[in-house]
Amino acid sequence: MRQRLTFWDKLNPADQQELFANTILRKYNAGQNVHDASNQCLGVLLVKSGELRTYIMSEDGREITLYRLYEGNVCILSASCVLQNITFDVFIDAEYETDVLIINSVYFSKLLEHNIYAENFSLKIAVDMFSEVMWTMEQILFMSFDKRLAVFLIDETSKTGNNTLNLTHEQIAKYMGSAREVVSRMLKYFEKESIVKLSRGIVEVINKTKLRDIIDII
Amino acid sequence: MRQRLTFWDKLNPADQQELFANTILRKYNAGQNVHDASNQCLGVLLVKSGELRTYIMSEDGREITLYRLYEGNVCILSASCVLQNITFDVFIDAEYETDVLIINSVYFSKLLEHNIYAENFSLKIAVDMFSEVMWTMEQILFMSFDKRLAVFLIDETSKTGNNTLNLTHEQIAKYMGSAREVVSRMLKYFEKESIVKLSRGIVEVINKTKLRDIIDII
Repeated sequence: MRQRLTFWDKLNPADQQELFANTILRKYNAGQNVHDASNQCLGVLLVKSGELRTYIMSEDGREITLYRLYEGNVCILSASCVLQNITFDVFIDAEYETDVLIINSVYFSKLLEHNIYAENFSLKIAVDMFSEVMWTMEQILFMSFDKRLAVFLIDETSKTGNNTLNLTHEQIAKYMGSAREVVSRMLKYFEKESIVKLSRGIVEVINKTKLRDIIDII
Repeated sequence: MRQRLTFWDKLNPADQQELFANTILRKYNAGQNVHDASNQCLGVLLVKSGELRTYIMSEDGREITLYRLYEGNVCILSASCVLQNITFDVFIDAEYETDVLIINSVYFSKLLEHNIYAENFSLKIAVDMFSEVMWTMEQILFMSFDKRLAVFLIDETSKTGNNTLNLTHEQIAKYMGSAREVVSRMLKYFEKESIVKLSRGIVEVINKTKLRDIIDII
């Protein structure tokens, strides 16, 4: 925890102790909701293990994944009440079984009032997420769907180090903020092009070079 | 300038003088480009009068307006090199004749290194823009186009205090990140519904209640 909270050395021993006293460890199951827009002040999250997915949702339930958080990542949007400059809310789900350290938002809010280093740390994390969201936004708004799906498949296989992805078309659609039909159609096209092999709940990437070619076409 | 730069009181007199020495006033004409993605370090902008439009652009030239800056607003994305947490670039144009104070980015970068208040100020402005962009993103991705156009017309008339807008369909499309044809079609629909009256380069809103009804329908 100390390495991740870069303002740690700027806290006096009493503050350090208080920070520990206001931090709890919580386990989330795969798929469990961690934070939603109606629950503004869960607190600052530090992912100990597992993966969190941050997304927005439309009135009719469509989801758009903004970014993912992995081991060692810190989430500040789950404590949007702490930073008055954040005026929006997001949803956060655990993708797998995930262990999270949660720093109480009431305490953290008080800390920020008297420690500019802690505030600076929190703002920087928010700006990092801003950069992530801008990347996602450009992907969604500007890229044609074949490119987006190719980027998604490349990312997933690099992340897991495995060319066989245990994902349904429905799940891929959710991650990409798209419709299942659109994903299925494009995957079938990729299969015909011998880029992937499809079976129930599984997408196997068999030709990464072709996938990269799709991304490189302007 | 002093009121807008909230870290001003945290600068010693020498720093204050240096800040002035590194600030210039520049005039932009209506429609002139102020900053583009290839020109990463113009500097921190402070709008003295007029209006700046910040947008992203796709490879094929489609634009999406992220937010606008008015008198007194500060822009930090035009100095993205100053904050390493900002890893994306935007375009900025002057909407009307606009006077801008520009703080040199090389100087500002050095200031941030030794003054955490100035850094804090810059990060807060970036997070404010993050909130603006999230709002825009939800509008674009989740709202049906009739709602979005209704919101746009309501916003424009409130801003100018005038129900007659001097805007072409092409301009509206650009502001909304849409196509001219889509805008024209919806405006014609609004005209048939006696919500607006159209003439060359002019959109007159004649029934705001109906516009608001469109927005309120879930």
